[in-house]
Amino acid sequence: MATVKLWSDAEVEGDPRLRAVFDDIRATRKSTFVNNFWRSLCNDAALLERTWAGLKAVMAPGALDPLTKELIYIAVSTVNGCSYCVHSHTAAARAKGMTEAQHGELLAVIGMAAEANTLVTALQTPVDKEFIV
Amino acid sequence: MATVKLWSDAEVEGDPRLRAVFDDIRATRKSTFVNNFWRSLCNDAALLERTWAGLKAVMAPGALDPLTKELIYIAVSTVNGCSYCVHSHTAAARAKGMTEAQHGELLAVIGMAAEANTLVTALQTPVDKEFIV
Amino acid sequence: MATVKLWSDAEVEGDPRLRAVFDDIRATRKSTFVNNFWRSLCNDAALLERTWAGLKAVMAPGALDPLTKELIYIAVSTVNGCSYCVHSHTAAARAKGMTEAQHGELLAVIGMAAEANTLVTALQTPVDKEFIV
Amino acid sequence: MATVKLWSDAEVEGDPRLRAVFDDIRATRKSTFVNNFWRSLCNDAALLERTWAGLKAVMAPGALDPLTKELIYIAVSTVNGCSYCVHSHTAAARAKGMTEAQHGELLAVIGMAAEANTLVTALQTPVDKEFIV
Amino acid sequence: MATVKLWSDAEVEGDPRLRAVFDDIRATRKSTFVNNFWRSLCNDAALLERTWAGLKAVMAPGALDPLTKELIYIAVSTVNGCSYCVHSHTAAARAKGMTEAQHGELLAVIGMAAEANTLVTALQTPVDKEFIV
Amino acid sequence: MATVKLWSDAEVEGDPRLRAVFDDIRATRKSTFVNNFWRSLCNDAALLERTWAGLKAVMAPGALDPLTKELIYIAVSTVNGCSYCVHSHTAAARAKGMTEAQHGELLAVIGMAAEANTLVTALQTPVDKEFIV
Repeated sequence: MATVKLWSDAEVEGDPRLRAVFDDIRATRKSTFVNNFWRSLCNDAALLERTWAGLKAVMAPGALDPLTKELIYIAVSTVNGCSYCVHSHTAAARAKGMTEAQHGELLAVIGMAAEANTLVTALQTPVDKEFIV
Repeated sequence: MATVKLWSDAEVEGDPRLRAVFDDIRATRKSTFVNNFWRSLCNDAALLERTWAGLKAVMAPGALDPLTKELIYIAVSTVNGCSYCVHSHTAAARAKGMTEAQHGELLAVIGMAAEANTLVTALQTPVDKEFIV
Repeated sequence: MATVKLWSDAEVEGDPRLRAVFDDIRATRKSTFVNNFWRSLCNDAALLERTWAGLKAVMAPGALDPLTKELIYIAVSTVNGCSYCVHSHTAAARAKGMTEAQHGELLAVIGMAAEANTLVTALQTPVDKEFIV
Repeated sequence: MATVKLWSDAEVEGDPRLRAVFDDIRATRKSTFVNNFWRSLCNDAALLERTWAGLKAVMAPGALDPLTKELIYIAVSTVNGCSYCVHSHTAAARAKGMTEAQHGELLAVIGMAAEANTLVTALQTPVDKEFIV
Repeated sequence: MATVKLWSDAEVEGDPRLRAVFDDIRATRKSTFVNNFWRSLCNDAALLERTWAGLKAVMAPGALDPLTKELIYIAVSTVNGCSYCVHSHTAAARAKGMTEAQHGELLAVIGMAAEANTLVTALQTPVDKEFIV
Repeated sequence: MATVKLWSDAEVEGDPRLRAVFDDIRATRKSTFVNNFWRSLCNDAALLERTWAGLKAVMAPGALDPLTKELIYIAVSTVNGCSYCVHSHTAAARAKGMTEAQHGELLAVIGMAAEANTLVTALQTPVDKEFIV
């Protein structure tokens, strides 16, 4: 029930800008599978290019390892209520080695933080001077 | 500008249930400092006890290390817009060794995920069958 | 999977208050189609009346044109994660002339703003004095 | 009360990557003023570069005019509860010609959409088949 | 640091539409105090009138008593992260008789629900057929 | 389309920790039905135990009656956009006696609060000194 057309491989092949992005997704991920998120972005080549360039740069190994980045991504997607993103990044985290025990603790931290966030907001607790940079 | 009274150490001392929690916070954290969140929860001893018991259990080392848990906590607090929580857990992450480079990448992942979350929601992209457990 | 009954045209006909609202929806929109949102509000006539009166007044042409109002409505619905509203108002925007290029730019602005919002919240950037009214 | 250091002009001058971005912000906006958002991003040059490149591309005139883009940006920032962003983009919208009447209607649409979003979510209204692409 | 002017009593006196709303607020609440929310809405008389008419109708005694309505209002405002609204409606709830024990339980339910909401979203738990109307 | 396995009764029977929680859910609710939320939490026994203990304590009768607590729970779940939670707690509220008139007023308050929350955030209305504790 997307609000836009999902582009097939054949349709993507016919547009050089889209094809270049899909080729890079496949090369970067070492997989022929391109998920629906990218197919739904094909309606705007500039948005597709910018989004892929951003994701590729941000999720690459760096000061944080790729699995930790996926856990953070799942946390953000959960609070934003993005069902698609929770599904796709939980799958990605498992592909990068997330164990069931790690998944359970991730859920526990997300839930605990959400609970404490609302308590603080309802209490309007002032920031301690010790936390100011 | 809290919506409730923040309890001083002297006031906490006078209530055995509150004092027991504060003693455990100090023993667990090996610090005499007790931040305002706990002082604003003192108006309901049962809520204070349950919240501390939950936080202590959830944030302890396990399948995920304490710093990774702090990064996830910051991510959730950011999306929930909890200024106090962002301040307190950014300070906690630094105390547990978060470098500036790690902080920068944390921010980048949070921002990227938030952007992609809204794109998916606006596109109403359907979940790929490959992501279904 | 609504949490309430969706009222059919026949059922609406039997209640003067509901019928009056449905008649006005059809007259205002110059269409016989009344979408499910209104049918699910029929369980509370006062809520139906107030909601329709508000929507009719707010979305009418004024200092902002109707298409711009629909774009703003889509933006709000996206951030609130309302799948139904994203579907219905994307359809409404197209009916009012939204092009694919405009839709693509709308998505880009929504995504960019969401990313910057989370960065600012994680950074707790203070408001510049230049922005104070 | 930022969670990071805000960089002064003198500090930015000493780093070629940061300086290049600040120079481009000033040239693009035809103003010497650089607001705190960019100063708080200076702690991570890559994040600063990517965020500015994204914002510059997305907010440029296109199929949607710059003022309409600012209105959408305010809507997103409001729902995300970003006080800084609401301040800075309300100022930006005024600088691009937003009238008080337009501001009032923007607020009315944001509020109306937020109300309807929650009604739909509480009612769990199913998407009409007429809205499916 | 409002994004608009807050209207003084003298300014409101000079505009018949605004004055009529302020008179009704004072008569309905049996108090001369008019809080800043209404003063910031004075920049758009139609929005002020519609918002006050809505609030007056919705918060009046009905199938739910006024205190229960305030508790629900605090819950919504907390999750939406509206500091002003949490302050004003916590004050309103106290004025309507909310005890400290009730406040504590309200906070506990809000926090528990927020925690469970995120767990369900991260787990993507399917709706039981027993819950379908 | 859960991201984890939903545990059947037979599977739960084979694990003493899970079985103890399910036995207590059934005894507390005086019903053999255990909904999917608990079945999806079985992948982490500690999380299941802690979540059930929290929910049981928080939703028990106290200074607020169980129906009022369900209404608050629905409000939080609605703003958080949790479809499962809206379904399950609307059903729970009805089981505890919520009438259609009460449901309609609950929706009206949720919608009104959501609208006012966004208006305040867009206006950045400062907190009146009268609301400070």
